[in-house]
Amino acid sequence: MAEGSDTDNSRPPLKVRRVSLDTGRENIVVISRHSSALRPEIFRGFSRVELKRGAKALLATLLITDDDALVGSDEIGLSEPAFRRFGEAAGSLVTVSPAASPESLDAVRGKIQGRAFKPAEIDAIINDLSHYRYSDMEIAAFLIGSASFMTSGELLALVRAMAAAGTQLTWPNPIVVDKHCIGGIPGNRTSMIVVPIVAAHGLTIPKTSSRAITSPAGTADTMEVLARVDVSAEEMKEIVAACRGCLIWGGHVNLSPADDILISVERPLCIDTREQMVASIMSKKLAAGSTHLLIDLPVGPTAKLANATEAMRLRKLFEFVGDHFGIAVEVITTDGRQPIGNGIGPVLEAEDVMAVLANEANAPADLREKSLRLAAHLLEYDPQLRGGTGYARARDLLESGAALKKMQGIIDAQGPSACRNDIGRLTFDVRAGGDGDVSEIDCLQLNRLARTAGAPIDKGAGIKLFRKIGDRVEKGQPLYRIHAYDQAELDLAVAAAKRNSGYAIGARHPASRETAP
Amino acid sequence: MAEGSDTDNSRPPLKVRRVSLDTGRENIVVISRHSSALRPEIFRGFSRVELKRGAKALLATLLITDDDALVGSDEIGLSEPAFRRFGEAAGSLVTVSPAASPESLDAVRGKIQGRAFKPAEIDAIINDLSHYRYSDMEIAAFLIGSASFMTSGELLALVRAMAAAGTQLTWPNPIVVDKHCIGGIPGNRTSMIVVPIVAAHGLTIPKTSSRAITSPAGTADTMEVLARVDVSAEEMKEIVAACRGCLIWGGHVNLSPADDILISVERPLCIDTREQMVASIMSKKLAAGSTHLLIDLPVGPTAKLANATEAMRLRKLFEFVGDHFGIAVEVITTDGRQPIGNGIGPVLEAEDVMAVLANEANAPADLREKSLRLAAHLLEYDPQLRGGTGYARARDLLESGAALKKMQGIIDAQGPSACRNDIGRLTFDVRAGGDGDVSEIDCLQLNRLARTAGAPIDKGAGIKLFRKIGDRVEKGQPLYRIHAYDQAELDLAVAAAKRNSGYAIGARHPASRETAP
Repeated sequence: MAEGSDTDNSRPPLKVRRVSLDTGRENIVVISRHSSALRPEIFRGFSRVELKRGAKALLATLLITDDDALVGSDEIGLSEPAFRRFGEAAGSLVTVSPAASPESLDAVRGKIQGRAFKPAEIDAIINDLSHYRYSDMEIAAFLIGSASFMTSGELLALVRAMAAAGTQLTWPNPIVVDKHCIGGIPGNRTSMIVVPIVAAHGLTIPKTSSRAITSPAGTADTMEVLARVDVSAEEMKEIVAACRGCLIWGGHVNLSPADDILISVERPLCIDTREQMVASIMSKKLAAGSTHLLIDLPVGPTAKLANATEAMRLRKLFEFVGDHFGIAVEVITTDGRQPIGNGIGPVLEAEDVMAVLANEANAPADLREKSLRLAAHLLEYDPQLRGGTGYARARDLLESGAALKKMQGIIDAQGPSACRNDIGRLTFDVRAGGDGDVSEIDCLQLNRLARTAGAPIDKGAGIKLFRKIGDRVEKGQPLYRIHAYDQAELDLAVAAAKRNSGYAIGARHPASRETAP
Repeated sequence: MAEGSDTDNSRPPLKVRRVSLDTGRENIVVISRHSSALRPEIFRGFSRVELKRGAKALLATLLITDDDALVGSDEIGLSEPAFRRFGEAAGSLVTVSPAASPESLDAVRGKIQGRAFKPAEIDAIINDLSHYRYSDMEIAAFLIGSASFMTSGELLALVRAMAAAGTQLTWPNPIVVDKHCIGGIPGNRTSMIVVPIVAAHGLTIPKTSSRAITSPAGTADTMEVLARVDVSAEEMKEIVAACRGCLIWGGHVNLSPADDILISVERPLCIDTREQMVASIMSKKLAAGSTHLLIDLPVGPTAKLANATEAMRLRKLFEFVGDHFGIAVEVITTDGRQPIGNGIGPVLEAEDVMAVLANEANAPADLREKSLRLAAHLLEYDPQLRGGTGYARARDLLESGAALKKMQGIIDAQGPSACRNDIGRLTFDVRAGGDGDVSEIDCLQLNRLARTAGAPIDKGAGIKLFRKIGDRVEKGQPLYRIHAYDQAELDLAVAAAKRNSGYAIGARHPASRETAP
């Protein structure tokens, strides 16, 4: 730390220059190898520097250039996120000094050596994280150091610190309900049916959702087909006051900035421990002011949870954290063997949702049933409702058209979306290679295919399913249709589907297997 | 993987452009947000891409720019290391596709979840690492995932894989000796005395050393004051054939490229587990063809090892790995309570070394004694030498001037260095604040101060010590002198020394403490 703390007066300042490089989450700055004020060799071994102007400071990772056209010898180049976060105009004078890592990283090193975090250490880590003071490498160290074990005390401290780092929502209602699915199942767009049913009943359900990062659609991506979802916390309040519910993108509300940052490293590394999943979800619910929360855990061979044992361990963690923070948490396991609904990809999923809400005859029955079941659980949180009548009430609200009307109210309140929302006209039908019953559907492979076809960037790209598990199929009959906007992407998805369709076709009568030795 | 494997034919190629950005170890490429061939949004969630031209492929991390002057819509910008490693001329056409992480990362995820690596998995990881296929984040995942535990089988597999990834040296002599210190002690430049003694005796000692990364000098930095050290494996062979010894920088010989990469992540994270330290050292010794190895473990309150228990655990690991690979390993613990010698920083340390070799009256006695002791151990490996006479033989070679003559031969063989080698003329004396005996010297703080003064980049910057532990000092007498080339850096070092000199001055007679209650 000594190297960084005294340099302001002795090193000549450099001029801020904006460098058009989108470096993602990480702050990156560039100096000239011929810098008039700094000798880049000094920074060997210190790839991190601190920029200062008055009381403002920014920690960043340093790159060096020989190109005077990019950064001159009297300048320091700030990549897009660093420029935005530092918030000083081009040409402003700043001092730059070698910087040690944030002090809270000492606790991370201790954790890696097998010590547990103290609550104050977790507070400091989350504070540094959410102020962009950790490099990607340092974030990885925190995540992986924590992955080997996390005590219950650490988990609670983490949830509290993550919730405290962002926007805190409060509501005038004593009961604020929410639902959350841990994801992994294609389609499965139940929130867009549950929210209007529950809001139509009169309970408050201010739903924030994520966008897809590695899946073909998140609820925010699908809702965006119908309405604007990048809504601020203030607008959200107005919409919920008017409609009792909303379906917006959580990113704009900034409920848990630390979680957004952690996810940006977890995802490329594909590291997802139970404790981190619970901390991520519960910190957002705590910040969002939820009082009653229903958690949906799909279980299936290609779901995130493979069996009931794994689901129970996760359930206990959710209940433990919920009890500690006074959130009434209910956890249910659901069938995660195959997609829910027929569409995979924003436009195709939105069509399923609207078909269910409009009570259309061809609406997917599995999506309808699952949504009613989830809504029934939430409605039972209403003290006014007679116990056990939640399902009937949910079905009434759906069948009467009250839920559809509520959805239209929410769409109107959120306003129109600017995004393209036609279905992909370039298509290819993937057909059965033989006769039999569909015995397995690989959720991971269907997600991959829909994404390869262009979802979620191309809203109308994705997959429309014609067969589900147990359905009879004959050779040459279509299993599903791939939709795309772009021929190259359709070709890629078709090639991938030819290698692995994601479908297994079993014997005509599965029972006959029982006669085999 | 499906996304990356079919894209060659369907995506139009981009033209290679060299972008003057030194991004350190990591391969980074830049595409335009308005790319004619790629839609950058496609890469959301895939920050890694694969470049292909014919059989050549490169994995890289992707940044996006809006600046057409930096990268045009039909171009892909390759930062310096990526450009160098891909090895294709500017203007060459390449295809670019989203890339999954290397497959070997699956084993890293398993390790994080508590499984042990199989040897083949470690081979695959080290192979991917040394071909620059891991991002910094992924390297951190490997290091930290391995930090929680490493089985003895994993450690052996890691040493073998790391040694196999680089240059393998072979020697015509049956006995090839080497010494290694785990570092952390300022000064302590024993190799530069031990090598000429041992080579003068007639044993083969082809010594490769590291440059400082976070310390004020490595042996390679100090030797560079006297001779060129960036010597290739071929040149090294010639020098050793002529002189029996050398003192060169290991980086140029490429003995363990995977280790160089692992260190580039370990250092900024300050993560240094025993197993990784042993794997790093032993893989290089195995690749260097050493048959007999002496390991120096300094023990002291501010050394890397705080007590004899820690030292013993590390000793056992070295012995275990040495036995397995047939290297005769001897491990000794040495006094690591304070610097060895009086100089800290390349020129000041080189002065100490030459004073010892020249048998000057004012040469530091501790550096001389420690070097003789280490040389004695190495000389005992010579079957021709009568047991127990190693120390006397080493002293004879030093006192007769044979060692100095050998050093001059090695310097001549390696050739002159181009670097500046005058002592820093800007100085400041740090003085005792009271009377007493020096009771403690903080190695970490002295390293920090010497580095702040400019070492090792400024060869003549650093610290010259006037007092060691146990020496009498009166108020106002100088403890040490800070040397620098640059006034700003001297000022910084002086300010840091005023906050913490690194010296503790105790009671006049330490025994008198025993009379206190």
